[in-house]
Amino acid sequence: MVSARTIGRLSLYRRLLNEMQAEGALSVYSHDLAAKAGVTAAQVRRDVMSVGYTGSPTRGYSVPGLAEAIGEFLDAPEPQSVALVGVGNLGRAILAFFSGRRPKLSVVATFDSDPNKVGRVIHGCRCYAVDEIETRLAELGVGVAILTVPAGAAQEVAERLVRAGVKGILNFAPVPLRLPRTVFVEDIDMTVSLEKVAYFARQGAARKEWNR
Amino acid sequence: MVSARTIGRLSLYRRLLNEMQAEGALSVYSHDLAAKAGVTAAQVRRDVMSVGYTGSPTRGYSVPGLAEAIGEFLDAPEPQSVALVGVGNLGRAILAFFSGRRPKLSVVATFDSDPNKVGRVIHGCRCYAVDEIETRLAELGVGVAILTVPAGAAQEVAERLVRAGVKGILNFAPVPLRLPRTVFVEDIDMTVSLEKVAYFARQGAARKEWNR
Repeated sequence: MVSARTIGRLSLYRRLLNEMQAEGALSVYSHDLAAKAGVTAAQVRRDVMSVGYTGSPTRGYSVPGLAEAIGEFLDAPEPQSVALVGVGNLGRAILAFFSGRRPKLSVVATFDSDPNKVGRVIHGCRCYAVDEIETRLAELGVGVAILTVPAGAAQEVAERLVRAGVKGILNFAPVPLRLPRTVFVEDIDMTVSLEKVAYFARQGAARKEWNR
Repeated sequence: MVSARTIGRLSLYRRLLNEMQAEGALSVYSHDLAAKAGVTAAQVRRDVMSVGYTGSPTRGYSVPGLAEAIGEFLDAPEPQSVALVGVGNLGRAILAFFSGRRPKLSVVATFDSDPNKVGRVIHGCRCYAVDEIETRLAELGVGVAILTVPAGAAQEVAERLVRAGVKGILNFAPVPLRLPRTVFVEDIDMTVSLEKVAYFARQGAARKEWNR
């Protein structure tokens, strides 16, 4: 079982490799990829081993080869469908951000409790009523959801998503979710992150490394 | 020196305490706060000790008292000013999200390279040209920045912010920044987070605890 941190780094490597490929690079050494990703070369080599790919000691890794190997490891064989719940300012921006970026991972439906939004097509996605979550998700085969509802609605909506078969949630609602352990939750709490930055910005003093 | 993880948890406790206070709660036990925050009671007690606050074994912590103690620890005596660079979809949504939430931490200026945005007031904040970063930030005393520019522009803009005196950056640009170690950077990489959720959603099998 590969850890969530490793999966996060592999996702980053793939994006960096795609950029290198767009710039015409054919091969890359582990220390170059490491410098771009902000990790050590040993870390890159361990992570690459975990996807079963090997480079050459003299020429390094093939850029397209490693990108493909990571893709085979990370991506599902078939495209995965994502639902987004909560089409406010943040939900809309996130929808626009992910729209059309990854063919293997795309938002296929949105949900909101506001009747003025229901039925509309927002960034290419139809908006349904929150009451329709169970029926629509089964229909569309959605296993992944992005939660951008207000804090007060998050727990209830998350439980509904889980009942509808969702196994992974990217949670932007500023509240910890209590869900079965079989559901993977990744929290993005922007307020906590900004308060953290503000606190350490004030500490000012030079230090070797931050304890993250 | 308190770790970034501790600061993150303290920020979360404060928000949970503020919600409890709004609902009329006067006191809370460490295990109740722990359950809401998704951590252990021992962790809550350690974190609370690090801000120098003590509760009563019989009545627990005072809700307003602990919220205030955390605030004194986390917040600067004077309000801290924040700048946001990159007023696209995401930047605008983040600006709306933070607008008016925290009196002690507010976005006072935004910057963009698009001449059509420069001079406009967006969510109550004036938008300046990126070329003005150095002069405006010195004028406004900004030490914290939110970076919502495209990946290709992020490194250059970040260096500019650091030259202008910024000591902490909340980075939404999907690229690791190379900056002096005296600058605290918190990355929010939404693509990596979504790919992680999609990967673990597919694993499906029940397991005791995710290795985050």
